[in-house]
Amino acid sequence: MKILHTVAELHAWRVQHDQVSFVPTMGNLHEGHLALIKLAQQHAPTVIVSIFVNPLQFGAGEDYTRYPRTLEADAAKLSAIGIDAIFAPSVEELYPQPQRYFITPPALANTLCGAYRPGHFEGVATVVMKLFQLVQPTIAVFGKKDYQQLTIIRGMVEDFAVPITIIAGETIRATDGLALSSRNGFLSPTERALAPALYQQLTRIQQALQDGERDYAQLQLNASNALIKQGWQVDYIAICDTQLNPANLETSSWMILGAARLETTRLIDNVMATS
Amino acid sequence: MKILHTVAELHAWRVQHDQVSFVPTMGNLHEGHLALIKLAQQHAPTVIVSIFVNPLQFGAGEDYTRYPRTLEADAAKLSAIGIDAIFAPSVEELYPQPQRYFITPPALANTLCGAYRPGHFEGVATVVMKLFQLVQPTIAVFGKKDYQQLTIIRGMVEDFAVPITIIAGETIRATDGLALSSRNGFLSPTERALAPALYQQLTRIQQALQDGERDYAQLQLNASNALIKQGWQVDYIAICDTQLNPANLETSSWMILGAARLETTRLIDNVMATS
Repeated sequence: MKILHTVAELHAWRVQHDQVSFVPTMGNLHEGHLALIKLAQQHAPTVIVSIFVNPLQFGAGEDYTRYPRTLEADAAKLSAIGIDAIFAPSVEELYPQPQRYFITPPALANTLCGAYRPGHFEGVATVVMKLFQLVQPTIAVFGKKDYQQLTIIRGMVEDFAVPITIIAGETIRATDGLALSSRNGFLSPTERALAPALYQQLTRIQQALQDGERDYAQLQLNASNALIKQGWQVDYIAICDTQLNPANLETSSWMILGAARLETTRLIDNVMATS
Repeated sequence: MKILHTVAELHAWRVQHDQVSFVPTMGNLHEGHLALIKLAQQHAPTVIVSIFVNPLQFGAGEDYTRYPRTLEADAAKLSAIGIDAIFAPSVEELYPQPQRYFITPPALANTLCGAYRPGHFEGVATVVMKLFQLVQPTIAVFGKKDYQQLTIIRGMVEDFAVPITIIAGETIRATDGLALSSRNGFLSPTERALAPALYQQLTRIQQALQDGERDYAQLQLNASNALIKQGWQVDYIAICDTQLNPANLETSSWMILGAARLETTRLIDNVMATS
């Protein structure tokens, strides 16, 4: 397994391989990432994982500086599952000058998480487009846990006719249901004990929808209130269609998404429901 | 020579070729385009030219509907100089749904022509990024006549690490100096006789700079006034550095750019000067 730190090293590696599959990450890898990488391995003979904490997608006051950087441990995990290369550039390598050109996504990027993280999805779309140009993969894998991100990447790839197939990987959960996330490491033991409640509330809505309940506003409010009572600050609980528009009475497949904070740690999750 | 009208036809053609060079155009080809294409032929064995009048880069009230569409004559010219393929999609083929994701260029896109054509360079950058993803060329050729466009495409390619080398082709002029442009066809005989004055004013500034004159504001004003006196409406005459920032007293290489209208026809041109 090669660890590539520069664009020049990446290019030199890339020309030696034909079809490549790609998993972009911010590192601090957990079983959720590893499941995405195993999915990538099923789709192409050569797998490259990027590890890059992208400053463009963090807003002022967000957790860019404290986001965990654990390259050595990440490399050991990736080596153990047998990938071909890691692309781990420095910020100066990926942005030798401040980025001037951006991908501007549609209004979807300003709803849900985008409403609480202005510019976040513009930063995500921009770095992903850049990584796609650098890595030139045939397929790229993204997790369903970041469902809004997945939707935006899919839309970008479609709109720009980027010749890459986007594959979605399932969310991996702890035994108590908490979706695996690098940010879980920020949780105190007390917070960690509370954390599965976000998923529990989403699955309650899922069950209610499957049982025929259609009062979306009330379902959202009930879930929010239950979390607030436990000490969460709720950014949103939203019942949407699969395009992430607010669900209406014609909707028959729902995405139920939530974002909520325990003190300074912001967690997100989502589940699907079908009538 | 193949004429490809669909993305599927383009992909089928593309996989049969290794290195491809690309000249994006809006058609109505003249000797200026053909010079760019000959330049492309020098750089790669296989040349593809796109012909697409891109609605995204035309503002309300601009000449999108009257822009000349002359595919048959264009194909004859391209066949005569021996290119490999034309990609001539319909609007519905290139934008099967309205574009939702855009390339947002930096402030440069709002100066000079961008100040008079809001959204123009966003539309240009967006379609060029999409065409690059579709065609996947090794090199692409753009004309220096659209120098601000060339600068923006170069910046976009650099910022997104698009693996394409951008080559700039010289402006081709009529014997009286008028830069060749599809829009010259809109000029009445009287207007056509006046049209070389834009270039003449730019070369006057060029000469003055080379002679040591540094009163940029006065040089710009003199040129504007001379054109206005002849009946032009002047959008701008601008003395810039090679990055298209306003020139200052340290500047030693200048781009002198102008845009001006004769009735409903807007012409642009530029020349370079070096101290």
